[in-house]
Amino acid sequence: MITLDDILAARTRIAPFVRRTPILPARQMRDGRGIDGRVTLKLEHLQVAGSFKARGAMNRIKTLPAEKLARGLVTASGGNHGLAIARSAHVAGIPAQIFLPSNVAPDKVAKLKGWNATVEIVGSVWDEANDAALAFASRTDATYVHPFSDPVVVSGQGTLGLEILDDLPDMDAILVAIGGGGLITGLSAAVKAVRPSVKVIGIEPVGSPTLRASLDAGHVVTLDRIHTRVPTMACRRTDEALFEAVRHTIDDIVLVTDEEMQEAARWLWFEFGIAADLSGAASIAALRSGKVVSGAYGQVCALICGAGTDGMA
Amino acid sequence: MITLDDILAARTRIAPFVRRTPILPARQMRDGRGIDGRVTLKLEHLQVAGSFKARGAMNRIKTLPAEKLARGLVTASGGNHGLAIARSAHVAGIPAQIFLPSNVAPDKVAKLKGWNATVEIVGSVWDEANDAALAFASRTDATYVHPFSDPVVVSGQGTLGLEILDDLPDMDAILVAIGGGGLITGLSAAVKAVRPSVKVIGIEPVGSPTLRASLDAGHVVTLDRIHTRVPTMACRRTDEALFEAVRHTIDDIVLVTDEEMQEAARWLWFEFGIAADLSGAASIAALRSGKVVSGAYGQVCALICGAGTDGMA
Repeated sequence: MITLDDILAARTRIAPFVRRTPILPARQMRDGRGIDGRVTLKLEHLQVAGSFKARGAMNRIKTLPAEKLARGLVTASGGNHGLAIARSAHVAGIPAQIFLPSNVAPDKVAKLKGWNATVEIVGSVWDEANDAALAFASRTDATYVHPFSDPVVVSGQGTLGLEILDDLPDMDAILVAIGGGGLITGLSAAVKAVRPSVKVIGIEPVGSPTLRASLDAGHVVTLDRIHTRVPTMACRRTDEALFEAVRHTIDDIVLVTDEEMQEAARWLWFEFGIAADLSGAASIAALRSGKVVSGAYGQVCALICGAGTDGMA
Repeated sequence: MITLDDILAARTRIAPFVRRTPILPARQMRDGRGIDGRVTLKLEHLQVAGSFKARGAMNRIKTLPAEKLARGLVTASGGNHGLAIARSAHVAGIPAQIFLPSNVAPDKVAKLKGWNATVEIVGSVWDEANDAALAFASRTDATYVHPFSDPVVVSGQGTLGLEILDDLPDMDAILVAIGGGGLITGLSAAVKAVRPSVKVIGIEPVGSPTLRASLDAGHVVTLDRIHTRVPTMACRRTDEALFEAVRHTIDDIVLVTDEEMQEAARWLWFEFGIAADLSGAASIAALRSGKVVSGAYGQVCALICGAGTDGMA
């Protein structure tokens, strides 16, 4: 569904509006448990609006017709997608309405307001906020932008895969946090098309194993309940088309606990001065918990996908 | 006093123990006031132990005789130098005793403990903590490491200048925060030896214009009082030898207010997801306040010299 050409086109389209983020070899640590010296951090938390989501959001608005765009954007988001939409709307000079569940991090709400978005908190989980966003879209004719069930958004996220391949030509594996599945789908499409030998390993919370459960079942499943406090990785059900695209390209999915992500975020802050959110620390959690053994792959890229204050907590 | 050979030797000596930090062009901002698109951030806040101070501290301990080293290290520090000493001692497997004034940031105290240093808070300004450190050194025979009045430490800081020249071969000016003067002295020695056309511009707090006052007087002066809340930039008097080394090599010193540094730290957090301390934001404060006009120089490197949580405040 997502082709390399889609992602190459997205890269050209969004290049003037996003950053090429730096990389940093993971060296000189006090506590190097799980990090074997061939791990490189991709500092995507330094991306504009604080995460990779800026890529997909920008690709979305750059492909909307002007008259549609003028009516504004609306979405529901645990934080990072909302920030990216708010920022993209700001760049385009149009209004953005963001619905959030009540478990969103306070620093993200402050940043949303900084991008001049209208913010409304509805419900305690994403689905409830999303219902409000859909109702708003049909009432106002604003463009609803789904955080992952949108091939244009997914193609934008895929540009991160191309960038990692450019940054790290000898990379053997990439560790990617999974929320709804948009990033890993776009990134896998790019990576497997250009360098099929590179392994793509997804990380999900123990309390929200959306893609893991679907892969195990062989079809998309809806989780009965979610018990993770990581809003950017809480998702009851992935998208059918995404699942078909990604089911044969992901090499593995491992599950980490919220506590492992919390420890990894603190570790990033202590060791590197990196302010990550819990999803941004998920790749490190997978390594430090031993659930991914970097030595089994060789050169490993740990994607730090989002900024936040969780490491200081 | 500090030669290029000293700094080249320091670079070789410390390379296995410090990070080469990444750079990031300052682009894609919501509010680009003062930042004209030819500004590049040097992300030295991602250095081990959170700042450039790791360079000087490592050069210091790698040049101490083993029997002296074994007795441990002691210093007084507003935070970053203390962290660097604590980390260097940890690498060497020796004890570190750090005296701090009471205005140190709480997150830095937590990190000091993370490096297993013994921490003691004495007095409200650096001088009082320093008296306690000197007394401890004479009592225990631990090696006292001064944060800036030590050519070996200053040579270590100078390696940052070489690294910036390597990172940014077309750079026209480098903006550097000043505390006691060690960093700007080492960095200037490196930069002016290798590429004399590059301008080096220091930034001091309005409330602690240590080098500015000395340059204006033509000799080292002692400030009557300090009124800045930035502990890493509060210093009543620089060192005579440093002053002689640096007085003809600094191209300008501008003064920024604490509020301008606070605004710059918030800006770094909002725009870039960078968690800087107030001194780490000083170069940005100089640009955003218009006290340094980047267009007057061309390509400008804004050094983000230390990590911290001030941007979230």
